[in-house]
Amino acid sequence: MDNLPTIDDVRSAAACIEGSAYETPLLESPLLNEKLGCRLLVKPESLQRTGSFKFRGAYNRISNIPEDQRKNGIVAFSSGNHAQGVAAAAKIFGIAAKIIMPKDAPAIKVSNTQAYGAQVIFYDRFNDDRSAIGEKLVRETGATLVRPYDDPMIIAGQGTVGLEVARQARAMEANLDAFLAPCGGGGLISGCALAFHAESPETEIYSAEPVGFDGTARSVAAGERFIGEPHGNSICDALLSPEPGELTFSINARLLKAGLTISDDAVTKAMKAAFSYFKLVVEPGGAAALAAVLSGQYKADGKTVAVVLSGGNVDADVFRKALA
Amino acid sequence: MDNLPTIDDVRSAAACIEGSAYETPLLESPLLNEKLGCRLLVKPESLQRTGSFKFRGAYNRISNIPEDQRKNGIVAFSSGNHAQGVAAAAKIFGIAAKIIMPKDAPAIKVSNTQAYGAQVIFYDRFNDDRSAIGEKLVRETGATLVRPYDDPMIIAGQGTVGLEVARQARAMEANLDAFLAPCGGGGLISGCALAFHAESPETEIYSAEPVGFDGTARSVAAGERFIGEPHGNSICDALLSPEPGELTFSINARLLKAGLTISDDAVTKAMKAAFSYFKLVVEPGGAAALAAVLSGQYKADGKTVAVVLSGGNVDADVFRKALA
Repeated sequence: MDNLPTIDDVRSAAACIEGSAYETPLLESPLLNEKLGCRLLVKPESLQRTGSFKFRGAYNRISNIPEDQRKNGIVAFSSGNHAQGVAAAAKIFGIAAKIIMPKDAPAIKVSNTQAYGAQVIFYDRFNDDRSAIGEKLVRETGATLVRPYDDPMIIAGQGTVGLEVARQARAMEANLDAFLAPCGGGGLISGCALAFHAESPETEIYSAEPVGFDGTARSVAAGERFIGEPHGNSICDALLSPEPGELTFSINARLLKAGLTISDDAVTKAMKAAFSYFKLVVEPGGAAALAAVLSGQYKADGKTVAVVLSGGNVDADVFRKALA
Repeated sequence: MDNLPTIDDVRSAAACIEGSAYETPLLESPLLNEKLGCRLLVKPESLQRTGSFKFRGAYNRISNIPEDQRKNGIVAFSSGNHAQGVAAAAKIFGIAAKIIMPKDAPAIKVSNTQAYGAQVIFYDRFNDDRSAIGEKLVRETGATLVRPYDDPMIIAGQGTVGLEVARQARAMEANLDAFLAPCGGGGLISGCALAFHAESPETEIYSAEPVGFDGTARSVAAGERFIGEPHGNSICDALLSPEPGELTFSINARLLKAGLTISDDAVTKAMKAAFSYFKLVVEPGGAAALAAVLSGQYKADGKTVAVVLSGGNVDADVFRKALA
């Protein structure tokens, strides 16, 4: 593959998004550290513009659409966080956006995407092919397709999370044994892996996926890209990707230590821990990496670990249930 | 009064807490801005160590206790956030702490204070005099009393919030028309008023207090310190101070534009807005300044405004009710 992003692309993305995306803080809780017997740093991308890290990649990708193509608009497909990131970034650049979303996406994700001015087109996650719908729209309109993860500039944008964590951890005198992030198609974890490989190569990188949607874990273990039918369901609506991306897997196969697989129950407990210890609202998928540490899927004892809390777009009733 | 803190004390406090307290971010939501017709910046001190701004003042005050007095320990009285701030800071300096807390304080505040290693002594908010209990303990043990607000070094420490907001707003090219913060005894708002008077004197400063506990609003309006019996109750457990402090009022009388008074209903709506728009867990008292803007107590139309979300220590059942 000759279009794989590099650390230079991640650094360029960091310069591109500076002043437009937030540098989210890196937080820790002495009380939770003591309870877990480790040093745990959390990166709350739930506080990022549009409530998830997705704004980073979307802004980086859209800023690079040539001037003469912008009038044709943007098309994207997304479970909801990429939708909001694309819609908000498109609005900043004054580009019309059509977003293809599953009809069972959380209400807050749909309404926010529309509030940013994008047109939402619904599809059936179990019966329709969202890529095909997107590609048809692109053929008809000449719009630019902004893919959710399998795009070098998207991966580079999401990788800026890793650059920030590596720098912030150094400033906190934390030598990271491991870095964990939630994983759907793999854009966030692959971009961050590029960043850590350059900035802190001794840090082990792990993805965290829901049970039944663990394509990256299986693919990394097998050494080849696993194309499976997604089976079952999960509360992690942001992580229900059918398969790892081609570009993302190509990076992850090389740079990930392993993929971890997380139950809905562990995710719910992690949402409650984020509430209690960090005062953060985290959506189910956003809590997957924290769940991997709290549930012991990753053995953190005695280690220094950073986890990304990748999003906070959760409906109030779902959050209330998680706290019950 | 010859012991009033100055802007130099606030700046010294900023240097003192650097690396120990977080610089919390300054966040905004384009969707909420559009809805309100203003530019609203929020400073989530809920993300501060111990879940509230109180760590700043406590750390600044305790770091200045002379070495030979530290063995006698610390005594503090607090509704819960100062308790946690003092307990966590005392632990860092290796000083034993006794904290006098109301017996109806939120469970999370009591258990966290104890988890930081402090001894908690309960009192009855309606019948006991917490100052008298504290002063008796000090006489008996030679401990240092770390007051919740009426202390120059506490005020200076809390004022670092204002220094950060003024600088962060400049970096976001936001010329602040107004700055609002929740107010109990007045330590946070008076310290921030010192900071803004030096850094951005054209910004109007407002306190936000619960109905029935609006001693600062009354005192600022009357031009003299109002000593009233607190009446009724409020969900804002952090803001139930019986009266403004002497030092804090002396500053607030000079530098506050006015005090605003907020209903529990407005506070509950603000907690839900912080959840939806900012993905933040804010406790009732911590949401008072945001409530002042959302409820129209402060007329924000067309203005650029910063509000402090001063704490996030709320029990899960209270938060679930606020989202219902």
